[in-house]
Amino acid sequence: MPVFKSIEWLDEQQCVRLLDQKVLPHDELYVDCSSVDEVARAIDDMTVRGAPAIGVAAAYGLAIAAIRAAGDVAAAVASAADSLRTVRPTAVNLMWAIDEAQRRIAARSPPSDESYRQAVLAIAHELAEEDVATNLAIADAAAQLFGDRTSVIHHCNTGSIATIDYGTALGTIRLATERGKSVFVYVGETRPRLQGARLTCWDLQKLGVPHRLIVDGASGHVMRDKGVDFCIVGCDRVAANGDVANKIGTFNLAIAAKYNNVPFYVAAPMSTIDRSTPSGADIEIEERDADEVGAIDGQPVTPPGIDVYNPAFDVTPAELITGIITEKGIVRPPYSRNLSELWDS
Amino acid sequence: MPVFKSIEWLDEQQCVRLLDQKVLPHDELYVDCSSVDEVARAIDDMTVRGAPAIGVAAAYGLAIAAIRAAGDVAAAVASAADSLRTVRPTAVNLMWAIDEAQRRIAARSPPSDESYRQAVLAIAHELAEEDVATNLAIADAAAQLFGDRTSVIHHCNTGSIATIDYGTALGTIRLATERGKSVFVYVGETRPRLQGARLTCWDLQKLGVPHRLIVDGASGHVMRDKGVDFCIVGCDRVAANGDVANKIGTFNLAIAAKYNNVPFYVAAPMSTIDRSTPSGADIEIEERDADEVGAIDGQPVTPPGIDVYNPAFDVTPAELITGIITEKGIVRPPYSRNLSELWDS
Repeated sequence: MPVFKSIEWLDEQQCVRLLDQKVLPHDELYVDCSSVDEVARAIDDMTVRGAPAIGVAAAYGLAIAAIRAAGDVAAAVASAADSLRTVRPTAVNLMWAIDEAQRRIAARSPPSDESYRQAVLAIAHELAEEDVATNLAIADAAAQLFGDRTSVIHHCNTGSIATIDYGTALGTIRLATERGKSVFVYVGETRPRLQGARLTCWDLQKLGVPHRLIVDGASGHVMRDKGVDFCIVGCDRVAANGDVANKIGTFNLAIAAKYNNVPFYVAAPMSTIDRSTPSGADIEIEERDADEVGAIDGQPVTPPGIDVYNPAFDVTPAELITGIITEKGIVRPPYSRNLSELWDS
Repeated sequence: MPVFKSIEWLDEQQCVRLLDQKVLPHDELYVDCSSVDEVARAIDDMTVRGAPAIGVAAAYGLAIAAIRAAGDVAAAVASAADSLRTVRPTAVNLMWAIDEAQRRIAARSPPSDESYRQAVLAIAHELAEEDVATNLAIADAAAQLFGDRTSVIHHCNTGSIATIDYGTALGTIRLATERGKSVFVYVGETRPRLQGARLTCWDLQKLGVPHRLIVDGASGHVMRDKGVDFCIVGCDRVAANGDVANKIGTFNLAIAAKYNNVPFYVAAPMSTIDRSTPSGADIEIEERDADEVGAIDGQPVTPPGIDVYNPAFDVTPAELITGIITEKGIVRPPYSRNLSELWDS
């Protein structure tokens, strides 16, 4: 595991190879990006998706900018950083990875264009490797939540391909299973893009973890009638007060969990926690194309000319969240204080 | 309005013509049923759907049984009643319409086979006509909920084709609009069968009511960020204590409404209120095919071999319901007492 790499650097071709997540699980195709524009497009159209994965893809975008730079390498990287940063507004890992790459470049102050190029690529590799280690640490921190037999609801996709490897929320399920725990997953299909149906089922099938697919609207019914130990999701940004932006449908799932007395956990690398965003109200929510809702596999489901409102994310208020699982441990309320302490630890 | 009839009796052919709701909005096709088996199949595969509509379709099924009976007409009708009653277990209108037809037949005690045949058909016509009058009375009772400008969330489809004409929850929106009120509808797409996207958008477009389609998981986000005056849905069965069985996703919508302080209304003809069912826990929840979730328009979205849990309905507890709108007025809590009083009034 994984059989498929979400992101791979091809040294010979000097390009980044992305698993095309749009066509999974039916086709397993790769897209090679050898320009910053191609990387930006792949992030925008969700060829690569998952907050940690798009962060690392952007870091490789900077490496490509450095390698391809005709003139001033540093200026080319700065320009690439500016354009990549804005492609998807909600997931903070994108901004974080670009900031972090730039911080590390500055710290090393490469003396020549050639060493600058090498440094940017080396830093992208570092971020990719660190992502795997972070996911393993998150999974280890979450181990205490899994009894011998645990039933959970999971939303969207947070597995190996949403990251570099292992996954965040799905990584916790994977590690628990590897340690001999029995885990059963109700997979929310995650409309409109069906990341649950398309990707999480594919992940769990490969991992051999038993699961059943449900429509998003069935989560409350499943909690009440089937019994669920907890819900677990990834996230795109955690505000300083513990509010969480994640895939649309997360807020409804968290409300349903609260009503049914089911704990609700968010798996989040520290890079997803944004101290500069005071609360969820300050998070920009990306709206995406109407066709994501109004058509499925290119086939319209509505009559022609229907107006669609398609927010890609929603904000779950901190009061609905039982714990945020980071690589430094599980943070519990009050989040403003405890997230701040975690940052400073 | 309506341009299309959900159910029409063809006197010459002695059969019932059903609008094929499976292929809307792309194709407007009709299915002629001239045997009880054909009617049962059309109810089962949701060619005809909507609690009031399937009740009337079943009544015409009894008329077909009477007309086609080779021997004992009463026995043929009784046998048809037994088989139609079990086709869909959750919607009580199916059972109610069959019971009501049988009650009226017994009351008239037709003296000959020929008069028996005529009576069964006449009763089916009566139930169809009464359905329209009931819907208008529900819409009139709901008028007090609509201010000059009202924004609502609606789930599933409860329009003219879910009934004989006018509709239940959508009928209230239609009448308010006809009376000059401005109504805006957020249409929950209603996975898995997308009755919202396919049918409610089609209804509202024909009615000229402005609307936007959303995924079911976005309802809480819409309530908080867009402002919604109330949610309104139809239902398949109301238990004696006010618990409501309706399309899967209704429970989550009601929980989200409660959390966001948005009133939640259920439009229900008295025939949907089942005094013999004490509470929601006593309502059988129909499970439907995995393919409704795992494939869309016949195209699989998941990897092969994925297990699906596909409950067609869920139960919304009475405590989440602000009012139940019937043809006798709006019933409010405590439901056990107030529904009982309504029955006896």
